[in-house]
Amino acid sequence: MIIAIDAMGGDHAPEQIVLGAVQAVAKFECSIVLVGNREEIHSVLDAAPDINKKKMLDIPDGQDVAEALAQIPEGESGWLAIKHTSQVIEMDEHPVQAMRKKKDSSLVVATKLVKDGVCEAVISAGSTGAATVLAQHYLRNIKGIDRPAIATPLPSEHGVALLLDSGAIVDSKPRDLTQMALMGSIYSQYVFNVSNPKVGLLNIGEEETKGNKKMQATYPMLKKMSTINFIGNVEGRDIPKGTADVVVCDGFVGNIVLKFAEGLANTLFGMIKSAIKETGLLAQLGALLVMPALKKLAKTVDVEEYGGAPLLGVNGCCIICHGSSNAKSICSAAGVANEFIRNNVLEHIKESLDKEEILTNDSESV
Amino acid sequence: MIIAIDAMGGDHAPEQIVLGAVQAVAKFECSIVLVGNREEIHSVLDAAPDINKKKMLDIPDGQDVAEALAQIPEGESGWLAIKHTSQVIEMDEHPVQAMRKKKDSSLVVATKLVKDGVCEAVISAGSTGAATVLAQHYLRNIKGIDRPAIATPLPSEHGVALLLDSGAIVDSKPRDLTQMALMGSIYSQYVFNVSNPKVGLLNIGEEETKGNKKMQATYPMLKKMSTINFIGNVEGRDIPKGTADVVVCDGFVGNIVLKFAEGLANTLFGMIKSAIKETGLLAQLGALLVMPALKKLAKTVDVEEYGGAPLLGVNGCCIICHGSSNAKSICSAAGVANEFIRNNVLEHIKESLDKEEILTNDSESV
Repeated sequence: MIIAIDAMGGDHAPEQIVLGAVQAVAKFECSIVLVGNREEIHSVLDAAPDINKKKMLDIPDGQDVAEALAQIPEGESGWLAIKHTSQVIEMDEHPVQAMRKKKDSSLVVATKLVKDGVCEAVISAGSTGAATVLAQHYLRNIKGIDRPAIATPLPSEHGVALLLDSGAIVDSKPRDLTQMALMGSIYSQYVFNVSNPKVGLLNIGEEETKGNKKMQATYPMLKKMSTINFIGNVEGRDIPKGTADVVVCDGFVGNIVLKFAEGLANTLFGMIKSAIKETGLLAQLGALLVMPALKKLAKTVDVEEYGGAPLLGVNGCCIICHGSSNAKSICSAAGVANEFIRNNVLEHIKESLDKEEILTNDSESV
Repeated sequence: MIIAIDAMGGDHAPEQIVLGAVQAVAKFECSIVLVGNREEIHSVLDAAPDINKKKMLDIPDGQDVAEALAQIPEGESGWLAIKHTSQVIEMDEHPVQAMRKKKDSSLVVATKLVKDGVCEAVISAGSTGAATVLAQHYLRNIKGIDRPAIATPLPSEHGVALLLDSGAIVDSKPRDLTQMALMGSIYSQYVFNVSNPKVGLLNIGEEETKGNKKMQATYPMLKKMSTINFIGNVEGRDIPKGTADVVVCDGFVGNIVLKFAEGLANTLFGMIKSAIKETGLLAQLGALLVMPALKKLAKTVDVEEYGGAPLLGVNGCCIICHGSSNAKSICSAAGVANEFIRNNVLEHIKESLDKEEILTNDSESV
């Protein structure tokens, strides 16, 4: 398996991205093509420890990438290839304009490697909007999916709650939400090993009649679906509680919840720190003693451990990472891509789509 | 000032509600009418310490409440009156049906006391839906307000972020959101003493063009308003950060954010507790030493301290409390009602409404 990684995307690119790729080829059975500025990538690699220089491949400009990668002996993994690109899509660029103008950007070239069948997955910590637009343009949507959704794993009391959509579809229709339910269910099953995942609709009350018009229209559709285990409406408090394994919501709501969670965690930890500092030496000693427990806990709720969020619904594996990703998150994202590919998530989504009558009929009534 | 409290609403009613009222009459310059089952209220009062029996007033059935309250010497506060009612609106009852059927319910009678000018505020920890419907029906909306909104104070790094609407309007229009902005701004100014409160629109990006269609339509309207200090879009993470003093959003989104925050806090504290327990004695000792600092912090982020959330937009003071309210929250809610009345929040809202051209013209284009 070969994964393309956008080496230039993210707040800590290229350093953390490249180091994450180095970790990933050592940890998983895969090879990676780092797409980005050759010089910058090299300067990170030169300073990095534990690199197997015999498994490095610098793809010459002008040479076909597939041809170059053919040098990797069949069945071998752990290779790190570099594909030079001259442009970078910035975080605040308009996605569609960027796609048109920056044909030699790291994200465009990395995505095209998946389209051309050279790589099996693309990972980026750059602009989420651009990654989404490019994946849709080059990989196309799966037949039967109107719009792809971002599925973000959130730590919960029972492991992981998969929140989707977390920002790709801001004016979703009930039909989009049913597609999310199906895709999220498959992903939870095959990547997080949850059998018969519980799917909940994020709403403001438990009864079928609660919520806004969109939710009221979506509920009966979800209830009719045969391939998912729909448990009904869930409320905001159910997300951390882990009431559902898959939480379906509009991208606008999902994105606000996600960013609120990040903000709340940061604020709380900051407040706890200064409260302890102000209270004096005994409290500071106490904090030291508590630290090992908190560190262990932090590991289980650490978003970095869960790697990136897949863009579900495109015809390929596209993993979107947080802009603040460090090496560890990028390595985890490679692990996610690994699971995604090895467990045939795409095929399973297609199979389920074929089985769902509510999704196969083409009426666009909702 | 006389406040009507629905003694029968809430998970811990009537005990905690009645005890909260007892605290409130001792703490604030007000008297309270406890509306509910006389026997149950008495049995709580009989067991409560520190009650000034000379300032208790049992309103006989059939007697006009205003007439009975006229016995309170002019200018005196600290009185506790009991108005008996025979019915209770349950949490899961349909609000409109409950209003029609249960004319002698504690919530209906308490709300009517405000309508009739006998009391100046009504407080309930019962069904939010019923409280909202009753307030609209009996108190009517302020002229110029299409639908009232619930404004919930959330602790932030800089004090309090007022989130509205947090559940009353689930399919809000841009016009509703502009009205929320105005009302929230006044409330923040006169109840939380924030001068020139920063008003933000909860969205999924900073730029004016971001978000769903509703937000894109709302942004330019907020920008045009002369009576608020609109700082543009804010994101989920800005709520705990305190970037804005007033955070405007659709009730569907606000309610999910609010319940998510509650759930997250509970889950986190539970996880921390068990992590410390599992790690052993030293960590437990550490936790003991840290406790005073955490308790101090807990006090500043304690929702109970902020009391209830006002229903802004009706012609009267209606404070909605969390279903899980205890005596402390009810007492705080009475404090909120006090501030609301003494600072003429209603008058200030009306004045601002008159000044806002965007709200005074009657076009229903949005």
